[in-house]
Amino acid sequence: MTTTSPSEHQHQPEEEDGVPLRLDAYLRDRRLLIDQALQRFLPAPDRWPTKLHEAMHWALFGGGKRLRPVLALAAFEAVDHHRDRPYEAVLPAACAVEMIHTYSLIHDDLPAMDDDDERRGRPTTHVRYGEDLAILAGDALLTEALRLVLDRDAYRGGADATRIIEVGRTLAEAAGWRGMVGGQSTDLGHEGAVDSEEALTFLHRRKTGELFRYAAMAGATLADGSPEEVEALAEYGETLGLAFQVVDDLLDDEQDRRDGKPQAQEPSFPALLGLEESRRRAEQLHQRALSLLSPFGTSADPLRLLMTFAVERDH
Amino acid sequence: MTTTSPSEHQHQPEEEDGVPLRLDAYLRDRRLLIDQALQRFLPAPDRWPTKLHEAMHWALFGGGKRLRPVLALAAFEAVDHHRDRPYEAVLPAACAVEMIHTYSLIHDDLPAMDDDDERRGRPTTHVRYGEDLAILAGDALLTEALRLVLDRDAYRGGADATRIIEVGRTLAEAAGWRGMVGGQSTDLGHEGAVDSEEALTFLHRRKTGELFRYAAMAGATLADGSPEEVEALAEYGETLGLAFQVVDDLLDDEQDRRDGKPQAQEPSFPALLGLEESRRRAEQLHQRALSLLSPFGTSADPLRLLMTFAVERDH
Repeated sequence: MTTTSPSEHQHQPEEEDGVPLRLDAYLRDRRLLIDQALQRFLPAPDRWPTKLHEAMHWALFGGGKRLRPVLALAAFEAVDHHRDRPYEAVLPAACAVEMIHTYSLIHDDLPAMDDDDERRGRPTTHVRYGEDLAILAGDALLTEALRLVLDRDAYRGGADATRIIEVGRTLAEAAGWRGMVGGQSTDLGHEGAVDSEEALTFLHRRKTGELFRYAAMAGATLADGSPEEVEALAEYGETLGLAFQVVDDLLDDEQDRRDGKPQAQEPSFPALLGLEESRRRAEQLHQRALSLLSPFGTSADPLRLLMTFAVERDH
Repeated sequence: MTTTSPSEHQHQPEEEDGVPLRLDAYLRDRRLLIDQALQRFLPAPDRWPTKLHEAMHWALFGGGKRLRPVLALAAFEAVDHHRDRPYEAVLPAACAVEMIHTYSLIHDDLPAMDDDDERRGRPTTHVRYGEDLAILAGDALLTEALRLVLDRDAYRGGADATRIIEVGRTLAEAAGWRGMVGGQSTDLGHEGAVDSEEALTFLHRRKTGELFRYAAMAGATLADGSPEEVEALAEYGETLGLAFQVVDDLLDDEQDRRDGKPQAQEPSFPALLGLEESRRRAEQLHQRALSLLSPFGTSADPLRLLMTFAVERDH
C-alpha cells in the first residue's frame, strides 16, 4: 500500500512554514495512503452509473485535507504501538468518514442550504453536475461509506464482526440526527437560537465533533484497543474537532478585522466570548487533549502534534 | 408487540373488494406491527432536533403501504415456520427498509428531481418544511436506517453479529450507487437512453428490485435461513419488485387510455412491448416467483398471496 514505513518521518527536527516538518511529513504520508485507498475503494468512473460516479469523484478528489481519516490512522497507530497490524485493518473505516464528510459538503453547498458556488477554488458539485446529480452523489457517498465500513473483505481479515458492527453503528450515529445532520439543522436556524457558549458548543460537538470522535474511536477499536483506550481516544477526537472549530472562528475573526469587515453574523466563539476568552478555550482544549493522551507512549506523538497543529496554526 | 398470532388470518376464504380477505387481513396486521415498531424506533418529535424530527415523522407516517417491511416479515415467517423467533429478531431490519424507501421519496420529490408538490394527497416534505429541511430529513432517515439495522440491542438478542453485518451491508448496497441511487440517476436520464426491454428491466431491478430483494433476504437471514433459502427468497423479492413495476406500468397505461391521454413519455413496458407482451411478462414473473417458493410449505403462503396481489390487482 505505501512505500514508506510510519517510523521514517517521526524524528525530523526541521521546521518549514512554521509547521514542524515531522507533522508535515506525517500528514503528507498518511494523506497519500488515504487517497490511494479511496481510489481503490471507490468504483472507477467509467462504470455504470458513469455520470453519478463522475460527480462522486469530483467531490471526493477535490483537494480535501483528509483530517478525519488521518485521525483514524493516528489513533490506530497510537494503540497498535508495535505495528502488528496492516493498515488494511483500519482503512475502510478511515475512508468511510471522508466519504461522509464529502457528502455533507455536497449537500451543505446546495442552493437550498448554504448556496455556495465554489469550494477549494473549484465549482461545487451542483454547479458542475446539476442539483439533481449533486443530491444523488451525496446520497451515494453516504450510503457507500456505510457499505464500505461493513465490507469485511475490505479489511483483509483484519477485523472481527463485533468490532465492525460497533464501528459502523457509531458512524451512522455520528452522521445522523444525533450528530452531524442535527447539527446542520441547528446551524440553519431550525432548532432555536444559538446565543450562548453552551449552545454553540452543543452545535459544534454535533456538527463537527461527532465525526472526529468516530474517527478516533474507529482507529482505536480496530487496533483492538481496550475499552479505556477507545474511550480516551474517542474523547480526544471530539476535543480535537472542537479545538479546530474554536481556532477556525478565531482565524475568521482576525481575517475580518484585517479586512475591516464587520463581524460575521453567524454565532462564533469570539462573538460570544471575546478574543481573549476564546484563545483561553482553545488552550484549555489543548491541555485536555494532552491529558487524555498521557497514558499513551510515543506512539501517540502524531495525535499530540495534530492537536498542537489545530491550536497553533495561522491559517 | 401484536395481539394476534400470525396463523389466525391464514384460512379465511371470504373476499372483499376483489382482494382475498386473508391477504387483506395479513397486510393489515403486519402493517400495524411495522407502524408500531417505527413509532418505537424513531425518536419522538419533541426531542432536539425538533423540526428535523417533525419533518422525518411527516414523511414516514404519510400513509405508506409498508410493502417492503411486510415482505421482510413474510420472508421471516416463511423460513421460521415453527414460529420459534419473536418478531423483534427482524423488525429493525424491516423498519430500516421503510426508512430508506421514505428517504428516497423525499429526495425524489424535490424541485431539482421530480418536483412533486403532493404525495398521497398531502403536501410533500419540502413543500411543508422547506427544501433544506427536506434534504436533511432524507439524509437523516437514510443514516438512521443503517444505524437501526446495526443496533444489536434493538433485536433483543435475537440476531448474531455475522448475520447483522451481512444484512446491513446488503441494505447499503441495495440503496446506493449499485442499486437505488444508480437507478434514479438512470431514470433522470443521466446514464444513457432507456430504449429496450433489457435497459428498462436493468433500471427497475436497480431502482426498485434491489430494496425488495434486500427485504426478503433480510427476513430469511434473520430467521437463520440456509444459504439456499436466503438466495431463493432474495430472488423471489427481486421478482416481486419487478412484477409490481410491470403491473404499475400496465395500470398507468390503461388509465391513460381511459382518460384519452397520449401515452406517457417515460419508458414503460407497454410502450416498449405492447399490452399483450407486457401482460405475458407479468405472468412469467408470477410463475417464476411461485417456482422459487416451491421448496417452502404453507408458511410461504403470505408470499404467494403477495405475488398474486402484485399481478392481479386493478389499482
